[in-house]
Amino acid sequence: MSHLENLLEFLRIPSVSANPDHKADVERAARWLEAKLAGLGFAAEVIPTPGHPIVYAEKMVSPSAPTVLIYGHYDVQPPDPLELWHTPPFEPVVRDGRIYARGASDDKGQVYAHIAAVENLGDGLGVNVKFLIEGEEEVSSVHLEPFVRANRERLQADVLLISDGSMYAPGVPSLEYGLRGLVYMEVRLEGAARDLHSGTYGGAAPNPVHAAAWMIARLKGEDGRVLVPGFYDAVRPLSEAERENFASLPFDAAAFARSIGADALPGEPGWGALERTWVRPTLDVNGIWGGYQGEGSKTVIPAKAGFKFSMRLVPDQDPHAIREAVTAYLHRILPEGYRMNVLYHGTGKPVVTDLESAPMRAAARALEQTWGRKPVFTRAGGSIPVVADFQELLGMPIVLLGMGLNDDNLHSPNEKFDLECFEKGIQASENLLRLLAQG
Amino acid sequence: MSHLENLLEFLRIPSVSANPDHKADVERAARWLEAKLAGLGFAAEVIPTPGHPIVYAEKMVSPSAPTVLIYGHYDVQPPDPLELWHTPPFEPVVRDGRIYARGASDDKGQVYAHIAAVENLGDGLGVNVKFLIEGEEEVSSVHLEPFVRANRERLQADVLLISDGSMYAPGVPSLEYGLRGLVYMEVRLEGAARDLHSGTYGGAAPNPVHAAAWMIARLKGEDGRVLVPGFYDAVRPLSEAERENFASLPFDAAAFARSIGADALPGEPGWGALERTWVRPTLDVNGIWGGYQGEGSKTVIPAKAGFKFSMRLVPDQDPHAIREAVTAYLHRILPEGYRMNVLYHGTGKPVVTDLESAPMRAAARALEQTWGRKPVFTRAGGSIPVVADFQELLGMPIVLLGMGLNDDNLHSPNEKFDLECFEKGIQASENLLRLLAQG
Repeated sequence: MSHLENLLEFLRIPSVSANPDHKADVERAARWLEAKLAGLGFAAEVIPTPGHPIVYAEKMVSPSAPTVLIYGHYDVQPPDPLELWHTPPFEPVVRDGRIYARGASDDKGQVYAHIAAVENLGDGLGVNVKFLIEGEEEVSSVHLEPFVRANRERLQADVLLISDGSMYAPGVPSLEYGLRGLVYMEVRLEGAARDLHSGTYGGAAPNPVHAAAWMIARLKGEDGRVLVPGFYDAVRPLSEAERENFASLPFDAAAFARSIGADALPGEPGWGALERTWVRPTLDVNGIWGGYQGEGSKTVIPAKAGFKFSMRLVPDQDPHAIREAVTAYLHRILPEGYRMNVLYHGTGKPVVTDLESAPMRAAARALEQTWGRKPVFTRAGGSIPVVADFQELLGMPIVLLGMGLNDDNLHSPNEKFDLECFEKGIQASENLLRLLAQG
Repeated sequence: MSHLENLLEFLRIPSVSANPDHKADVERAARWLEAKLAGLGFAAEVIPTPGHPIVYAEKMVSPSAPTVLIYGHYDVQPPDPLELWHTPPFEPVVRDGRIYARGASDDKGQVYAHIAAVENLGDGLGVNVKFLIEGEEEVSSVHLEPFVRANRERLQADVLLISDGSMYAPGVPSLEYGLRGLVYMEVRLEGAARDLHSGTYGGAAPNPVHAAAWMIARLKGEDGRVLVPGFYDAVRPLSEAERENFASLPFDAAAFARSIGADALPGEPGWGALERTWVRPTLDVNGIWGGYQGEGSKTVIPAKAGFKFSMRLVPDQDPHAIREAVTAYLHRILPEGYRMNVLYHGTGKPVVTDLESAPMRAAARALEQTWGRKPVFTRAGGSIPVVADFQELLGMPIVLLGMGLNDDNLHSPNEKFDLECFEKGIQASENLLRLLAQG
């Protein structure tokens, strides 16, 4: 079977980690990887966790050869809203040179590119390769950190290679050296014990939707500033070198807005859109609900309302300190007459990696060989929570080799992965593994 | 069949006017009434409208006899959230002396009480009776006003009798002489053209959930004051007599809060809960949505969000003037970078009726005969939009004879109607029709 056919088979498994109904599918995706890697001569296993399992596989070609640890994830985001997909999310199709499916770019396509590279190298593989592929990245990798902590020895390597990101632009090979951290929380509010008639009770009954709106307006102001006291205190100032590097990157704000179908790019004053997504922390409500959502009108005062929200953090913000500050603030701004329940959905530390490490230089050469041009060095707005854990626990150099594109519709309907990104990703991985073998 | 058995049969028809899936059921409820009234010797018909049909029936005993026009509605609120019902909303059960079903109190039970009274009086009926029972009261009676306007002659009567409300307290017969008006609107917001990854785009992408929260916080402040400029300008001051009447009514705010399972009764400063629900206008969000509402976490910036909200108005606020002011205000407070669509879901004028009319005095006597005590005179927080239209178009005295109780769970799960309210309602209607016949 071709690499593409293999990937399409992988994409057909609806491994949605956030939805308990898909638990068996997530397990199936892990088994699929185990079988695939075993077939390539890896010692592969599916390791259970209290949540979804971890796939670990290693192929040791020689004790003296350098070792590469490749991390990725086989779980995917929920596909909803389903009605906006042009073709079903788990029936992958190749259209106009693109693979359309949930997980095509995030992260099954990028994970499989490395597997394909190893397969292409065959007996020519000159480095020891360890695959660590988790099933909980989209639900904050809650059980990976303990695993890494408990398996330091086993995971030892000379470089950690991660492909779970995007190139700066089509045809522009990129190396990411920074990721934002994450704190994901949920607020549930209750006013009365039951829904009430908005006529009979309007004016006297608590309305938790208003409480939610007041609180959200106090979390982030209309100017885009997060209003939680101390939120920005630990933010590391942007260096001149970085500011210049960002300024040197081609960026067209109007084109960026058009690319997402937005009329404007509202955000924190004093910073450009690139900086606001890479080096500034932010807060976004990811979902809200309460009362009647059906057709027409229903004159009800809802008993309950709730919202999920997440913050993206940058060095040196500490996720747990931020979460505590936000929780305390939520209790302070909770209006009188409402019962509140605050839920935690996991955290991730922000990270910046060493631009000057030998593996980073090798990666730059590998990309140049693949694309015929030098890569640009970028940071990313997204989070891969485990990267900071790896950095702390294993201390090895990290290379973030993003293969996707910013318009891949990650976490949205019609997620896609360009065939060129897939093929060049395989070549880049092959070239890098060759260069690393030469030491 | 007993009156109760007839009512239960009526309640089994899921005539949910807000939900297009129930169009046929709404029609079925209209046909059921037509057959029932025809069986009692009424000239009955189901009159189509661009929406749901109107049931009109009349029984003329004598040209010289007084004529009573009885208005009610056979449509009901949507039953969701279904999971909170102890028994299915459209499988009525009698438990502990109460009839549990959607529509039991609002308004099928009260409508049927009048039909039962006419049946009991049989040949003893001394007044001409006209029934006007609509199927769109829960969706703002959009097509009734044109019908009334076009049928002024046909609807002529000496009194308009309406039972679509509550008694002040259990065992306390009440006559309502005021109703609040209504303006129901919906706001739909769009930021980007698709849902976006909150990491990649967080900080630069518009988030319509925040826009909704900012706007809701600008519609009503945390102190309960509506912030739309001019909103309170036309509000008629409360008279001393009314203030004293309200003060004379037994009211226990703590017990009221307990009765709805609320810790507090937040609202406009300077007014008691009774005044805030009867004689002060208010604004409540009835529903809100946007982004991920499922289990766990999804790191998405939603492309769309929306909310439904309604205002309860008091004399002399004009619904159309208020709606225009709110629409203009919404456009003023819409943050930059969002597309907004404002929808209208109907309006209703506030109304106060004449306490001294002959029919009102007859109604007071009828209630005293029924309950053995004089009724109290109250106003209501709810709206019956058509009442103001009747007042303007037909100019006849209006009697609001509420048979339900405040804890009937109108518009909520487990709506109920006490058997005593049903039986006393039938007697009160009989007594009133007798007294009116005596002129």
